[in-house]
Formats: sequence, structure tokens, C-alpha cells
Amino acid sequence: MNHHYTYEQLFDFTYNVFKKIGCSNEHAAIASKALLSADLRGIESHGIARLSGYIRLWEAGRINSAPDIKVIHETPSTAVIDGDKGLGLVVSYYAMQTAIEKAENAGTGWVSVKNSNHFGIAGYHAMMALQHDMIGIAMTNASALVAPTFSIERMLGTNPIAVAIPAKTQPPFVADFATTTAANGKLEIAQRKQQDIPTGWAQTKDGKQSTNANVIKEGGALLPLGSDREHASHKGYALASIVDIFSAVLSGASYGPWVPPFPAYVPMPQNMPGEGLGHFFGAMRIDAFRTKEDFYFHIDNWIQRFRKAKPSEEYNHIIIPGDPEREAEERHLREGLYLLTPVVEDLLQLSKRFSINWH
Amino acid sequence: MNHHYTYEQLFDFTYNVFKKIGCSNEHAAIASKALLSADLRGIESHGIARLSGYIRLWEAGRINSAPDIKVIHETPSTAVIDGDKGLGLVVSYYAMQTAIEKAENAGTGWVSVKNSNHFGIAGYHAMMALQHDMIGIAMTNASALVAPTFSIERMLGTNPIAVAIPAKTQPPFVADFATTTAANGKLEIAQRKQQDIPTGWAQTKDGKQSTNANVIKEGGALLPLGSDREHASHKGYALASIVDIFSAVLSGASYGPWVPPFPAYVPMPQNMPGEGLGHFFGAMRIDAFRTKEDFYFHIDNWIQRFRKAKPSEEYNHIIIPGDPEREAEERHLREGLYLLTPVVEDLLQLSKRFSINWH
Repeated sequence: MNHHYTYEQLFDFTYNVFKKIGCSNEHAAIASKALLSADLRGIESHGIARLSGYIRLWEAGRINSAPDIKVIHETPSTAVIDGDKGLGLVVSYYAMQTAIEKAENAGTGWVSVKNSNHFGIAGYHAMMALQHDMIGIAMTNASALVAPTFSIERMLGTNPIAVAIPAKTQPPFVADFATTTAANGKLEIAQRKQQDIPTGWAQTKDGKQSTNANVIKEGGALLPLGSDREHASHKGYALASIVDIFSAVLSGASYGPWVPPFPAYVPMPQNMPGEGLGHFFGAMRIDAFRTKEDFYFHIDNWIQRFRKAKPSEEYNHIIIPGDPEREAEERHLREGLYLLTPVVEDLLQLSKRFSINWH
Repeated sequence: MNHHYTYEQLFDFTYNVFKKIGCSNEHAAIASKALLSADLRGIESHGIARLSGYIRLWEAGRINSAPDIKVIHETPSTAVIDGDKGLGLVVSYYAMQTAIEKAENAGTGWVSVKNSNHFGIAGYHAMMALQHDMIGIAMTNASALVAPTFSIERMLGTNPIAVAIPAKTQPPFVADFATTTAANGKLEIAQRKQQDIPTGWAQTKDGKQSTNANVIKEGGALLPLGSDREHASHKGYALASIVDIFSAVLSGASYGPWVPPFPAYVPMPQNMPGEGLGHFFGAMRIDAFRTKEDFYFHIDNWIQRFRKAKPSEEYNHIIIPGDPEREAEERHLREGLYLLTPVVEDLLQLSKRFSINWH
């Protein structure tokens, strides 16, 4: 079994799977590109490893492969989009395009989305703004795994925030992070390696600090960025809450402990107060604030100055947000991508089921 | 010496001091209200304790008490404001008003500000949006005290973010936090009490973790929210960077290690790439997304559900962002405010210098 693939091989396969479940050519391409951007950028937990999960959601009737995605409310700089239970990977593309179009006319565009599903990595959607000389923003809520400060109840998702800022001589600034101390994927890695996790990542169901990588499966919770009260976990809790409110309370999606789960075998929450997952997107035209020339001169200067910040003894240099992901993307496009055996086995199942050639 | 005062006593005194340095009646009232909101909300480090600091900046010619604050660039949903070296307390009021007016017409309003000074607490400005049925956002850069992840150089300020979200039957959600693990004021408290600080708040000039409350004075740096790499300090570093770029690179203010200091005795940075401090404000009209009725129903539901989240054994209940500050404000308006002796001595000096009656 060959575990090394080119991007094109993975794209073709993913595209054909999405076609088989009923996506249009256009939607299948949009979804494949968004999904695989995670693998390219080194965030394998959110990429092709989740393809079979999306298919199971479609089987369970929770994803509509031919959605009628539409704007249901708008002003010159805002819109609310109903995703019609579509793939978040697809709905988000149209929502971000809408934000960009609003920004062309009004200076900025802000789009809150309801009735959607998981959208892959936030950074991919935020980066759509870059080629338009705009700052892009993307965030989403997600099913509850995180306990607020002082609580033992899972109330919030890992609710990521991405901000992409264009530059000219320098590569863009792209921050993309969960509002928890550690993403759930990091716990999964520790589980596979049978390793402990650092304190500050998760707590037991009784609210005690834990180094057990399986603590979430045992009723525990991830901790908000900051880890504990003394290290300001109330700030991570506030950030995750803001993402939840912008994504869902503004749009009419479900929120807090009622956000639908990703695994199709997990029952839907009872008495959901809204429809599906929620996202929030923003686009700000650079020249809505100052000339592009001035902005690009200073953002390049900002990035160059930070790149030269004096490193501590243990490190050679500091990192500008987006550096590691961009380097991974360049490497993966050049050298191809490696997939883990369980992922390959998953894809083989899909290839049999849908009679799609697998490499 | 009586250290207990009513809000009105402190307001009259502050108002008269601002009048004496040349502020108009309107500006003196705006500045006093903004400054004292910090004392009311229990963030004493940013309130009347800083009044003499603002006066010293005026003496040093770094603050213009009669600024010509004007919009120098705009689109339907954006503006850039030149603060003309005014008090940030005053400039921010006009900037936030501009954001609110933009939002009335375009759905949202976003204002980046250059050539300003320290603006007090971010939350006060964000909360201006609440009475207009809008979400308010405020952030500012500040002089460099924070080392990015992997660095030992002070490159960023404590760069706070505030987000105020209106509610109806519930009090509003008001998050207001520095993007560091601990605000500098917390180190100052430990210094006064001659106590150690927890690890994760600050590092030495060589980048080692430190529990010495005086470590900043000895060339050390505050740590970004997250504290260290293992606990995701790169996320706090990214957040502080976003605040810096939105506040200054979008507006033409100074940024990164070149942000002007608050103490008037500290020399201005050499080769500043922009003018003064920068801020960034946003206002989003609720009904630019959905009807007020729907929004208020669900935000009240969100807040009530989170308030009922199961607390851990050690705590009675969890906190909604803004709860402690609102309770402090209600108490202070009812019972008055206590000032520390060094603050009272500072105010006595000001009362003599400007011949203003001190209680």
C-alpha cells in the first residue's frame, strides 16, 4: 500500500467522492480544495482524514449535497446566509465571496451563516480575501468540548478564529487558531502514541487538571486558551463565546451546548435553539482605510521587524503567524503528501463503496 | 486624609483638571467620564491613578488638549481618524461615535485611529454601542512590554480587546482583556505586596520563566496569553499582533516596538514609522443581521444557559464576561470609591498646582 500521494491524486479522489454523493461539479471542486487545504497546510486532522466523516453525515441526512445557499437578510456591509444544510466547505466559500463583494462596495463585508456544517480550516476561508487586497476573517462554532472557567460542563467548541492580512514583499500574515489551549487533534496524537498530555490542556469530569490523553472520552473537557484562572483562561472562554455569538446568535444557527456534533453516530442535541452550525466571515478592503501603497509599505515593515525580533537562546528565530503552514504547503505541493494507514484504509473503503479508482 | 469619595467628587475634580490644561467643557467631560469608568468598573490601574500621568504627557507636549479630531479617509462602512495628538479618552469617543453612525447607515462601522494617546479601558468605548442596539468592539496598541513566542525582545503592548454585546432581560456581555496572560497592573500589585508572581506571567531578559514581580524593571517581558509554547502563547502573540496591525498599520499610527510610552519621562522611540498610538473600533447593528426580537431572545437564552453551566466543586457559579465589572460599578456608584494613599497624594499635588479644591 502506497501512502505517498501527489496533491492532484488526492484532489481527484476527493472530487469524485463528493460528486458521488450528489455535489455539482462546482461544489465538488470547492469542497475538495477547501478540505485538502488542511492537508497542504499541515493540519492533517481537518483534511482528507475527515472525508469519510463528511460522507457519514450525508448518509445520516445531516448534510445536503445540493443545497440552495441564499442570502436571507442584508445591508450594504452585512448579510446572513442560510446554508440549507450544505457542506460547510461549500457554504463558507459563498459566504466569504459575499463578504468580499460587500467590501468592494461598502469598504467592509460581514457575513453570519446559519444552517451549515463543519467548514474545514478557518484560515483557508480567511485567505480568500488576500488576492483582493483585503483582510479576511473567518470563525466558526463547533460542538461543545470546552468547559468555561469555573465550570465542569462542556459548553463551547474549540471555536477557531482566523485572520489573514495581505503583504507585498513579505508573505501574508495568517493567524488561525482554536480558542482552546490545545486543539483536540493534539490529544488524539497523544492517544495514538500512548503519551501523557501536559497539564493545562484538559480537565477531568470533576474539574481536576489531568495529564490523561483520554480524559475527554471519560467525560472531561478541553480548557480555554489560558488553561486556568491564574493564567487567564477566562480570556479564552470569552474569545470562544464571542465566536459562538457572532457565528450563531447573529445568524440563527445553534449555539453553546446545542451545536450539532461531527460524528454522525452521536445523536443530535435535543431542543436545538437554531439551525445547524454557524460561521462568521469578514472582509476589509485595505484601501477603505489608507492607500494600498502606504499599507503595504508598513505591513511589510511590520513583518520584517518582527522577523528580526531577538530570539531566546533556544530558538533561532521567531515565527510570523502563517509561516509554518505556508512552508508545509510549499513542501507538500512539491514533494507530495503522506497519509497515515488508518486514513488510507478509510479512503479504500470509500473507493470500494463508490467504485472510484484509488491509487 | 479622607480616602473615600463619591463618584461625583472624583468627576468634578478630574473635570476641573482637564479644564485647566485647556480642554473644552465637552472634552473635559468626555475624558473624565471615560477615565473614571475604569475606577467604577474596578480596574483602578487605568483610572484616576493615571490622571497625573496624562498631565505629565501634556506638559511634555505629547498631548494636545485642544485637538482637531478629523476623518481623513472614509467609505460607507469605514473611516480613518487623525486624533491630532489628543487625549485618547476623547479621540476614542469621537471615533466610536463615527463607527456607530457608519453602522446606522451601512450596517456596520469600522474606524482605525492614528495620532492618539492612551484611551483608558477598552470596554468603556465598546459599551457605547450597547444603547444603539449594536455590538461594540474596541482595541488599542500600547508601548512594547511583551515578547513574542520564542523571543526575548519587547515587541508588543498588552494590546487589549473589548467586545460588548447587548442583551435585553439579561445584562450585556462585555469582554475586555489584555492579550497577555497577566496585565502589568497585576505585577505592580505583587510588587507593592512584595510577593512572587506565578510562573507564566513574565520572563527574564534572557527568556527564562520568572516569579520575580520586578522582572519587567530588570529588562524582562510580559508573556502573551498562553504563557509558553506548550500552552499556546503563539495564540496570544497572534492576537496582540492583530490588534497592533488593525490599530496602527491600517491607520498610520506607530506600531510594534515604536509605540510611544505612557510615562512622560521615557524618551520617544527613534524613527517612529507612524504617528502616535493607534486604536480600532467597530460597531455592528444587530438588525443588520436579524430582527432585534430574534437576536435578543437568543442572546438572553445564551447568557441564561451559560450562567447555569455546572460549576466545579470549588466555585458556586460561572461568570459571564462583564459580570464582575458591572457589579463593581453598581457598588461604587452606591457606596463611593476608595483611593490608595499614593493616588490621593498625587491628586493633592494636582489640586495645589492647578488651584482646584480637593475634598
